[in-house]
Amino acid sequence: FVPPGVLPLCRQPLAWSRARRQPPGPPLAPCRAFSNNKILVELDESSGVATMKFKSPPVNSLNLDFLTEFCISLEKLENDRACRGVILTSAIPKIFSSGLDITEMCGKSTEHYAEFWRAVQEMWLRMYSSNMVTVAAVNGSSPAGGCLIALTCDYRIMVDNPKFSIGLNEAQLGIVAPFWFKDTFVNTVGHRVAERSLQLGFLYPAPEAHRFGLIDELVPEEKLQEKAAAVMAQWLALPDHARQLTKSMMRKTVLDRLVAHREEDIQNFISFISKESIQKSLRMYMEMLKKKS
Amino acid sequence: FVPPGVLPLCRQPLAWSRARRQPPGPPLAPCRAFSNNKILVELDESSGVATMKFKSPPVNSLNLDFLTEFCISLEKLENDRACRGVILTSAIPKIFSSGLDITEMCGKSTEHYAEFWRAVQEMWLRMYSSNMVTVAAVNGSSPAGGCLIALTCDYRIMVDNPKFSIGLNEAQLGIVAPFWFKDTFVNTVGHRVAERSLQLGFLYPAPEAHRFGLIDELVPEEKLQEKAAAVMAQWLALPDHARQLTKSMMRKTVLDRLVAHREEDIQNFISFISKESIQKSLRMYMEMLKKKS
Amino acid sequence: FVPPGVLPLCRQPLAWSRARRQPPGPPLAPCRAFSNNKILVELDESSGVATMKFKSPPVNSLNLDFLTEFCISLEKLENDRACRGVILTSAIPKIFSSGLDITEMCGKSTEHYAEFWRAVQEMWLRMYSSNMVTVAAVNGSSPAGGCLIALTCDYRIMVDNPKFSIGLNEAQLGIVAPFWFKDTFVNTVGHRVAERSLQLGFLYPAPEAHRFGLIDELVPEEKLQEKAAAVMAQWLALPDHARQLTKSMMRKTVLDRLVAHREEDIQNFISFISKESIQKSLRMYMEMLKKKS
Repeated sequence: FVPPGVLPLCRQPLAWSRARRQPPGPPLAPCRAFSNNKILVELDESSGVATMKFKSPPVNSLNLDFLTEFCISLEKLENDRACRGVILTSAIPKIFSSGLDITEMCGKSTEHYAEFWRAVQEMWLRMYSSNMVTVAAVNGSSPAGGCLIALTCDYRIMVDNPKFSIGLNEAQLGIVAPFWFKDTFVNTVGHRVAERSLQLGFLYPAPEAHRFGLIDELVPEEKLQEKAAAVMAQWLALPDHARQLTKSMMRKTVLDRLVAHREEDIQNFISFISKESIQKSLRMYMEMLKKKS
Repeated sequence: FVPPGVLPLCRQPLAWSRARRQPPGPPLAPCRAFSNNKILVELDESSGVATMKFKSPPVNSLNLDFLTEFCISLEKLENDRACRGVILTSAIPKIFSSGLDITEMCGKSTEHYAEFWRAVQEMWLRMYSSNMVTVAAVNGSSPAGGCLIALTCDYRIMVDNPKFSIGLNEAQLGIVAPFWFKDTFVNTVGHRVAERSLQLGFLYPAPEAHRFGLIDELVPEEKLQEKAAAVMAQWLALPDHARQLTKSMMRKTVLDRLVAHREEDIQNFISFISKESIQKSLRMYMEMLKKKS
Repeated sequence: FVPPGVLPLCRQPLAWSRARRQPPGPPLAPCRAFSNNKILVELDESSGVATMKFKSPPVNSLNLDFLTEFCISLEKLENDRACRGVILTSAIPKIFSSGLDITEMCGKSTEHYAEFWRAVQEMWLRMYSSNMVTVAAVNGSSPAGGCLIALTCDYRIMVDNPKFSIGLNEAQLGIVAPFWFKDTFVNTVGHRVAERSLQLGFLYPAPEAHRFGLIDELVPEEKLQEKAAAVMAQWLALPDHARQLTKSMMRKTVLDRLVAHREEDIQNFISFISKESIQKSLRMYMEMLKKKS
């Protein structure tokens, strides 16, 4: 019963079988692990599950290099018939990702801002529309863009530690989350929670994030990877084709909105970030961060 | 304060009185009970409440005959000025309705698929836009299309038995719930619960369905009809005209979407269901069901 | 990251500082308190917080005079650079506001209905789009239009007393909440709760309103103003510019809908309210109220 306008997403043959996928077609090129500067990728071919571990010290901030590597890794997995799901987690203690790298938005050229923003959009578009099952195993704090990565996943598990917090806290920095951050947030926690949280730039400690539905499940730190694997197995038990079409149906409106306004959104970002008042604020914020550390 | 674009739905005169409706106009034709092959209908003229009992063994599956009789019965009640509300329930133990009849989607002609799908649409359109108060008294399991019927009602009461489950589990069968199933579901449980439930094809045991808001109220089996009557009385205490306009205002966007894309939706269904891979899956599923029983 | 289409709302310079705002520009005209016939307004210049106290006995009903004074007071504050937030509360015991004044809708001329309805729209448009932080300190019952005022605020605190109730109970009066009341309600409590509550014209006792998210927080009566001030301080800790842009982004769709259909909505109101059946109902309702008191 394919709804009108749903794009064909089918990479997988329809199968009743819940058994491990037996990929059809020619034998696959071996693909077990690859890594680049900022992300470690491991693929377990027997389960079809990859893990992407963010390893960009000190805080996995999303700079242009990270975003580029992220999208390349994701595309590799997306096109790899041995891969059906991906778990996102951090290789750095206490932090999942600190979000967009402010140095990319400060004192750079218009061209740089455009390139950076396009990379942020690209990351969001690929994750939110991924054919793979995507699970965030949030093992540390995850503000702003870090929270966004988690929001794009199909399921979010977080370490049950009130010292780890998560949220779209852009307003606290004097900036505004773009409309597609907001749309993803509203789709997850509903309009009222989103309205209040975004205006106050709330960072929720893990237990509170769970109460509001921003996080689906809390687990002790030592159980995180095990739980992520179990959740993944549950999602992979479904026939890929039907699951993918359903996911696309749920997310299409919000995805289409950015696709339709992508260039406009880049121009908006550039003109906002280029304001002297904003530049000054970001510089002050960076000073504050330096003093802190 | 009628919002723009709301259709005139008024069959009832506006009345402050909470007392039993005194129908204006000429005396009514007697209408106490009628039944057809698959549905028993009883109308209590003193309360204005009809009960439609599904009686299509073994599992009240929604085949073309059932859907046709359902729509005819519903239309009769809708046009009967003595009837203001209808309670839907099952005459078969342990099952409310098993949903769309798979035999209608397997090995049939294109014309048959079109006729069947139009009947499913018709059932949904009539129920979701009904001028009557509609209460689902869910006294058994209610997967897929069975769940949809419950979702179209104004209120859902379910027997408090974890052995009875309910949900839109299409993805488990390798098929995709159409967009209007999804819209109805989102309107009831919100975007996030719908996204997760539809992708996983979840069937919720009654208590869990209640926790997520898919079911409004749980009662012991022996209290079900009594509770349904009490709920109905509460809804009928409101002036029909205002209640109907309000209901229409809440559901119009979603109703209009199917009306605008009805033929397209039929064509989509036909081309999806006619695929050899889907036919094969449905055959395998029916085999499995046969072995089970 | 300004989303496309967001209007520039900026009255405040961007500031990292959480400290008390130091208003730039020429010295301010003194503005401490002003009042008119129906509303007491006090502005604490040191905190930037104004309080608007409704004082229109017996029940703060929203007649044309009240609405006019409300909008004038609000505009004054909105344009006053010393004012960043406003707390709405009642100076009359046990009632916040009884909602739209029925006498304005009964036995009046078409011109009067149009003027009245435009004033109701104006109040909603100004409140829902206010640049200021708006907190409702609900210290009494608040049906219909009274509930609407609370819904337009950024945050709702209510006295924890089950004798005080709140809700959009229009259906109980045989009338229909306009689409923009409905949109505001859906944005606050979600589609399902709104659908059920509006059809049944529910008035929720404060504790239940809190459970459904219609009210954000309950406090003992003697703590209400203190809590409102504390909440206000929390919201004012954010940079105004980012908070305002975020608020606008969240509410724009719903605001634009009324702006686009404003005249149509007035005509709809006039033709609905002018019906003899509606006039009769409203007269009966007023009789009932008179007998009660």
